Amino acid sequence: METPIVGIIMGSKSDLKIMGAASDVLRQFGIPFEITLVSPHRTPHRMVEYAESARKRGLRVLIAGGGGAAHLPGMVAAFTTLPVIGVPINSTMSIQGLDSILSMIQMPAGVPVATVGVDAAANAAVLATQMLALNNARLADALEKYRATLKDRVMRTIEELRKGGFQDDV
Amino acid sequence: METPIVGIIMGSKSDLKIMGAASDVLRQFGIPFEITLVSPHRTPHRMVEYAESARKRGLRVLIAGGGGAAHLPGMVAAFTTLPVIGVPINSTMSIQGLDSILSMIQMPAGVPVATVGVDAAANAAVLATQMLALNNARLADALEKYRATLKDRVMRTIEELRKGGFQDDV
Amino acid sequence: METPIVGIIMGSKSDLKIMGAASDVLRQFGIPFEITLVSPHRTPHRMVEYAESARKRGLRVLIAGGGGAAHLPGMVAAFTTLPVIGVPINSTMSIQGLDSILSMIQMPAGVPVATVGVDAAANAAVLATQMLALNNARLADALEKYRATLKDRVMRTIEELRKGGFQDDV
Amino acid sequence: METPIVGIIMGSKSDLKIMGAASDVLRQFGIPFEITLVSPHRTPHRMVEYAESARKRGLRVLIAGGGGAAHLPGMVAAFTTLPVIGVPINSTMSIQGLDSILSMIQMPAGVPVATVGVDAAANAAVLATQMLALNNARLADALEKYRATLKDRVMRTIEELRKGGFQDDV
Amino acid sequence: METPIVGIIMGSKSDLKIMGAASDVLRQFGIPFEITLVSPHRTPHRMVEYAESARKRGLRVLIAGGGGAAHLPGMVAAFTTLPVIGVPINSTMSIQGLDSILSMIQMPAGVPVATVGVDAAANAAVLATQMLALNNARLADALEKYRATLKDRVMRTIEELRKGGFQDDV
Amino acid sequence: METPIVGIIMGSKSDLKIMGAASDVLRQFGIPFEITLVSPHRTPHRMVEYAESARKRGLRVLIAGGGGAAHLPGMVAAFTTLPVIGVPINSTMSIQGLDSILSMIQMPAGVPVATVGVDAAANAAVLATQMLALNNARLADALEKYRATLKDRVMRTIEELRKGGFQDDV
Amino acid sequence: METPIVGIIMGSKSDLKIMGAASDVLRQFGIPFEITLVSPHRTPHRMVEYAESARKRGLRVLIAGGGGAAHLPGMVAAFTTLPVIGVPINSTMSIQGLDSILSMIQMPAGVPVATVGVDAAANAAVLATQMLALNNARLADALEKYRATLKDRVMRTIEELRKGGFQDDV
Amino acid sequence: METPIVGIIMGSKSDLKIMGAASDVLRQFGIPFEITLVSPHRTPHRMVEYAESARKRGLRVLIAGGGGAAHLPGMVAAFTTLPVIGVPINSTMSIQGLDSILSMIQMPAGVPVATVGVDAAANAAVLATQMLALNNARLADALEKYRATLKDRVMRTIEELRKGGFQDDV
Repeated sequence: METPIVGIIMGSKSDLKIMGAASDVLRQFGIPFEITLVSPHRTPHRMVEYAESARKRGLRVLIAGGGGAAHLPGMVAAFTTLPVIGVPINSTMSIQGLDSILSMIQMPAGVPVATVGVDAAANAAVLATQMLALNNARLADALEKYRATLKDRVMRTIEELRKGGFQDDV
Repeated sequence: METPIVGIIMGSKSDLKIMGAASDVLRQFGIPFEITLVSPHRTPHRMVEYAESARKRGLRVLIAGGGGAAHLPGMVAAFTTLPVIGVPINSTMSIQGLDSILSMIQMPAGVPVATVGVDAAANAAVLATQMLALNNARLADALEKYRATLKDRVMRTIEELRKGGFQDDV
Repeated sequence: METPIVGIIMGSKSDLKIMGAASDVLRQFGIPFEITLVSPHRTPHRMVEYAESARKRGLRVLIAGGGGAAHLPGMVAAFTTLPVIGVPINSTMSIQGLDSILSMIQMPAGVPVATVGVDAAANAAVLATQMLALNNARLADALEKYRATLKDRVMRTIEELRKGGFQDDV
Repeated sequence: METPIVGIIMGSKSDLKIMGAASDVLRQFGIPFEITLVSPHRTPHRMVEYAESARKRGLRVLIAGGGGAAHLPGMVAAFTTLPVIGVPINSTMSIQGLDSILSMIQMPAGVPVATVGVDAAANAAVLATQMLALNNARLADALEKYRATLKDRVMRTIEELRKGGFQDDV
Repeated sequence: METPIVGIIMGSKSDLKIMGAASDVLRQFGIPFEITLVSPHRTPHRMVEYAESARKRGLRVLIAGGGGAAHLPGMVAAFTTLPVIGVPINSTMSIQGLDSILSMIQMPAGVPVATVGVDAAANAAVLATQMLALNNARLADALEKYRATLKDRVMRTIEELRKGGFQDDV
Repeated sequence: METPIVGIIMGSKSDLKIMGAASDVLRQFGIPFEITLVSPHRTPHRMVEYAESARKRGLRVLIAGGGGAAHLPGMVAAFTTLPVIGVPINSTMSIQGLDSILSMIQMPAGVPVATVGVDAAANAAVLATQMLALNNARLADALEKYRATLKDRVMRTIEELRKGGFQDDV
Repeated sequence: METPIVGIIMGSKSDLKIMGAASDVLRQFGIPFEITLVSPHRTPHRMVEYAESARKRGLRVLIAGGGGAAHLPGMVAAFTTLPVIGVPINSTMSIQGLDSILSMIQMPAGVPVATVGVDAAANAAVLATQMLALNNARLADALEKYRATLKDRVMRTIEELRKGGFQDDV
Repeated sequence: METPIVGIIMGSKSDLKIMGAASDVLRQFGIPFEITLVSPHRTPHRMVEYAESARKRGLRVLIAGGGGAAHLPGMVAAFTTLPVIGVPINSTMSIQGLDSILSMIQMPAGVPVATVGVDAAANAAVLATQMLALNNARLADALEKYRATLKDRVMRTIEELRKGGFQDDV
């Protein structure tokens, strides 16, 4: 089995129903990844170790999700210079996910978090793929095909709607 | 010199103009404290060490200020079980301080941050004093006197305003 | 039966389903507490009496929850110098709990409220325990164990997920 | 001198520059009023006494201004059944005045605060006048004249602008 | 049948489920009222006529509810000098009721709307009663009794909870 | 069949349940329209072509709906000088529709988007009709009748409520 | 002199510094317009008359600006079926202009306001021009030229920057 | 001169004072870049060409800044599969930069934008460097050194403060 090059982490099991979408996308692109729980507040040493060992263990991009005061991506970014992608999660206690967006995005100079949309774990994986594709022609191609697929799906939907009588005013 | 029992920390020098108010209040109450920079993102190991050694070094309450994605109080709270007070700072890049409030207050179950108002470093120090006063009769008394002073100041202002012609409609 | 040292108060019966979590945590730590209704707007004299007699009655920390324009923690804090912890409640009429956060956190200089997250009554109790532990070695130990438990629970979840096939990409 | 029938109160001297507009309007309508400082957090007993004695002392409407976690109008309303008008003040520590709006407006059932706009002390006074005019034909007339004045001022401005060349495209 | 002295108006039938609470409260206080639909945007002339004839028809206080861009209270206030109470309604299209709060509360100088909380129609009626009680001893008494009832209800709930085993830690 | 003069576009099939209201209104006014999917991010070239060919193909007004970071109306507006109406959609990932309002409304100088309310596709169609009515007496008449219908519906509801016992206090 | 076909209105003289940009743009396009004050709250009858007579007087598009609880565009839209463009103004009392955006945009079904960005009076005029261009080839051409100018200005700025040493890294 | 591998783009010249920080950081890391104006709304074809030719021209990461309804990063991302970093700019017309954050971050599935903090152009450049460092040992080293520098600067500031008498309470 290939060494994982993307690490997907999150603070609690309940985040899995959102973050699972990231693993789906990476699997689709054939990118080896690992996915696990790393709680910045309940397992802070695990977080430090995870972040510090990430590069040595072969990881190249980290995807970190969290709800509420979401410190995981920002703190992981403090312990590694690998690119870290943050996924704000609209959890039960969240204020529409806005608390998590602001907890991730407003990082101080020198330690960025690449923040994507609320619950947008799939997009985090696409972004990770784009980073990895910078030196991987296969992935660069796969991304082009993925985009084509997105387009095709829209075009097919238009066809179906057309057949279903939609657009009959046109 | 007495061993400090309150630690005031903040991420950058520019936070000092806000956090200085906390040291003023502690000095007024005769509480030995230390004040220093601990950046969660630029000196993360220092942060871990600071938080983990805090109890052993005799600190009993921590006051942590920060702007933007303010992770300092929450992360310090993850590495110690001492009470941690958070001061959201309305820095240049802030969204009215609301980003820092939400970054501090919305902590997961088990690891609270006692958050006070935007730029309210003085109140953080009063809160720390209230905690320390739980087993310190002198501080408990001092707090009562402090409250009386707050009241007296309002009453004196009323007198001055009255002399200045204010309230002449009464 | 021991004299309660933490008072948990809230404005209405409907707040109980949230604030009950605070009593669960205190019970777990073996901290004697009382829990009752004190409405700042419907029983304002009761509130004044409650706050003013709190210290004399042996209470050492107050936890006050409220939704909407949540004045209870701030007003109780005005009538006592005991530390007051505020729990913003996301009630039916609430604006995502943001109204209650701001009603609690933005206190004037001299009268702080230690505000925790939306509906975070459990965290209020942990914070109260942290304050009481400042002079109670048993509680200080218990908090360390509680933290260890939090960590263990995360680690066990990781094990279970691993067994369930999760992380098989790792 | 006439007994004041409107009480204008606020928490601190710095609120005067906003709340002064209320006294200007009341003076204009010939309504006797008193204006003073009543801090809900620093002089809470004064607040209770002020609110409880208000009716007996002849006051009929209360106008209360405040910034941040603005508890004054709501708490005064808890200690009297006189109508209470709240003026959210956009003070230095405020979050655009939104914190004060929400602290005033979101009152529980049974204890309303008649909230006006941010810094809208003049409008609070007009509202007080409208309430008093319910049984005062002179004030009812005065309000109609005041409205006519508002209209005249707009119409005069239009004239001036017209003379100044404005609207020459019409 | 007595001439109505309070007019409750709203823009659409769907607002009735909220505004009905205002009529319940007024009925309880024995205040004759009328309740009807007046849409500022779909029946604007009806709105003008309603507001302009209100005083002549004997109405003394108007309560106007609305959701979204809620112009009804502010526009009615422009056509009468009677006090107008606004009830922001959290309708389907609303942004947590915040759009309606801001549409009502931020009125220009000279034309206030006494705004109450989101969906707080009952409180609007209590506020109307407080205004009418300024010259009505029976209503003033009724308000005191109403307050006592609010208090009693809280005290009874405490008793019931106590019997149910609640507070057994006290 | 008549050439469509209004184009209704949206980014994904799920937007149809909102945007369908626009076609209903246009059909009611007898305005020929087309309705289709144009995704700014998944079919960007289709979007460019759609916008650039719109005028030539006889379209005169464009209605574009979108949720989240809603770029469709603004980008279509960049590729045509036809008036573009934006409909912010409160989709699953939305922050109460506020993200889409701001993504549409805050356009730079020179390239406006006529933004309507959250999910207000029907209003977008009415606005399109108002634009087309500028040179179409039949539509101008139809709009007046439509307004009369809106009014009649309110008046009929009042009648029904009256018969149902509502307003019996009047 | 030509009869004005666009009416620019606003509630107060202070709005002129923002709304003047609309007249500048219309003048540039050679569109006859009128500009005047119409206060929805201080001159409500003037507003009704203005809106009701607009069509008869030859006006074809209305541009209405306002700050705070900005009712002018929505109420004018209630009294005419001409298209109404709303300009939210970030006035002194405003909450970042967000109060005005929401007061304008969230209109009920049947009575739309075409809302543009905060202080975006110029864009309101461009939008009005786009509407008028639907049946005016000269304006349609002028809009294309205007767009070309916008583009040229960007391209010229690029040239200047290039000459100034900017982009020398390219 | 080396071919640029990072493209920094923005909509208008006024954005330069913010985006210049990105070029400073890239220069510091020795990364060849280009910086130019690309307006999504005023030069939309230039934007399409820029994005579509980016990969072929050798660019590997794009940094796009914008204020208000900030469509540039999202639309550029639609026309390329290179990673795109978005910088929300708090421009004059902005609502605290929150409009731009939401316009960038809330992208649909498949087309992510890596969004950084408000005005955080320097962080965008660091993030770009982190991406490029995935296959560039020199940059990976440089990033570690950069981090060390950030840390050293904090430690030096602590020293200076200490010498200046700060922390003398410790």
